Amino acid sequence: MTFAVPPSHPRYHSLVARHRIEDGVRLGITTPTGLVAHGRGEAFDYLLGERSHPFAVQACTAAAAALLCAAKPVLSINGNTAMLVAEEMISLGRTAGALLEINIFHDAPERRQKIAERFRSFGSEILGVVPDARLEGLSSDRAKVDSRGMLDADCVVVALEDGDRTEFLVRAGKQVIAVDLNPLSRTPQTAQISIIDNVQRAFPLLEKEIDRLRGQGRAAWEAILASYDNRSILRAAEEAIRNGLQALPEDAL
Amino acid sequence: MTFAVPPSHPRYHSLVARHRIEDGVRLGITTPTGLVAHGRGEAFDYLLGERSHPFAVQACTAAAAALLCAAKPVLSINGNTAMLVAEEMISLGRTAGALLEINIFHDAPERRQKIAERFRSFGSEILGVVPDARLEGLSSDRAKVDSRGMLDADCVVVALEDGDRTEFLVRAGKQVIAVDLNPLSRTPQTAQISIIDNVQRAFPLLEKEIDRLRGQGRAAWEAILASYDNRSILRAAEEAIRNGLQALPEDAL
Repeated sequence: MTFAVPPSHPRYHSLVARHRIEDGVRLGITTPTGLVAHGRGEAFDYLLGERSHPFAVQACTAAAAALLCAAKPVLSINGNTAMLVAEEMISLGRTAGALLEINIFHDAPERRQKIAERFRSFGSEILGVVPDARLEGLSSDRAKVDSRGMLDADCVVVALEDGDRTEFLVRAGKQVIAVDLNPLSRTPQTAQISIIDNVQRAFPLLEKEIDRLRGQGRAAWEAILASYDNRSILRAAEEAIRNGLQALPEDAL
Repeated sequence: MTFAVPPSHPRYHSLVARHRIEDGVRLGITTPTGLVAHGRGEAFDYLLGERSHPFAVQACTAAAAALLCAAKPVLSINGNTAMLVAEEMISLGRTAGALLEINIFHDAPERRQKIAERFRSFGSEILGVVPDARLEGLSSDRAKVDSRGMLDADCVVVALEDGDRTEFLVRAGKQVIAVDLNPLSRTPQTAQISIIDNVQRAFPLLEKEIDRLRGQGRAAWEAILASYDNRSILRAAEEAIRNGLQALPEDAL
């Protein structure tokens, strides 16, 4: 597929992302459901002015502290994140000492293989290519995990995740960091730390926060987590969307 | 594809629509771009509470008056509307005395054929299967029209339409009635009558309004059009989205 929008276009990044997600269909990585979900995200990102707000930066600071405290952090990868932020998640995984694991809603062995191939093409291995364990208590395909990764992870980063699975991970005692553009959806409402931002902006930001906090030590990280209030972050995000709607130009979406 | 969500599900209609749009990929009718656009619509419909507001009813009244006044009205059909509201548009076309014409953003002769087959399966013919004319002044594939339809139509109903094409139709002197869920996008901002509603709710509503107004005669229809203010309709829709965001439960999208 060719992509001819010039970088000077005011919505260049959004259009590049859309192109990547659409191209993922050809590659066997994204699904129709993933495309529709991306469209919902586009609408919320547009209402947020397509920029990272202070509430997203604050959540990234808490998420960085959580990842630095974690014994076994895992970054969960689905079709959309594989297309949008494979390189950013590989880099974040290295900085955070976190494993990457495939976790897809519409399960198919060949989709897992295609996602793994994409990560290998960027020089990274990934878990979950052939899941060999199940999370107890979740009945769908979403229960499938890799015994080397998600099964006994203590901190899981999910992006563009299904609400049922997020609830389940929290109930299973894991600390869940969610990245999602809709503050009202069940995933950010359920996760302990919710970064309301576009994944393409959020993951580099989160990595930068880890680098910034690394030297401060565990006591500082724990203090950050103790004072973090996810409810107020979600309220701030809802407020930003309302304000965004008031401030918008008569513009194209 | 199977669809197993029970009708009692609070978001049943939204999930059925999503399933249809996704199924359209298999049928060669919807495209990846159409799926992403549907997702954006889902987000706005959710913020509108997935119901028809008074501003949508008012716009339908004006649209009904416009269709009753029109000498040659045409309903424009794309991949998403073909999957979502083929039967509703066929019924509306009969009630309004309007022709149906295929008009797709990503042109492909076989897509036009598949859409036509779908309409034929519901007992309706449709124009634009093999476009034989061009609208002057528009350079892309979107200029392609049927000489028996859109070319000299005086009133065109577009749904989920591209902004460039809508602007062009208005500049070409046509009265444009738009159905769109995002009041901020260029299509409803440009059209003379903008129905901010889900196409599945809007088209039956519009048809009902035509039946209601038919007996009132041209003077009444012209009076409705003379007093109609599309700017205030768009402002009311923006306000409803803001209020929707304030009133929403902590619910899943």
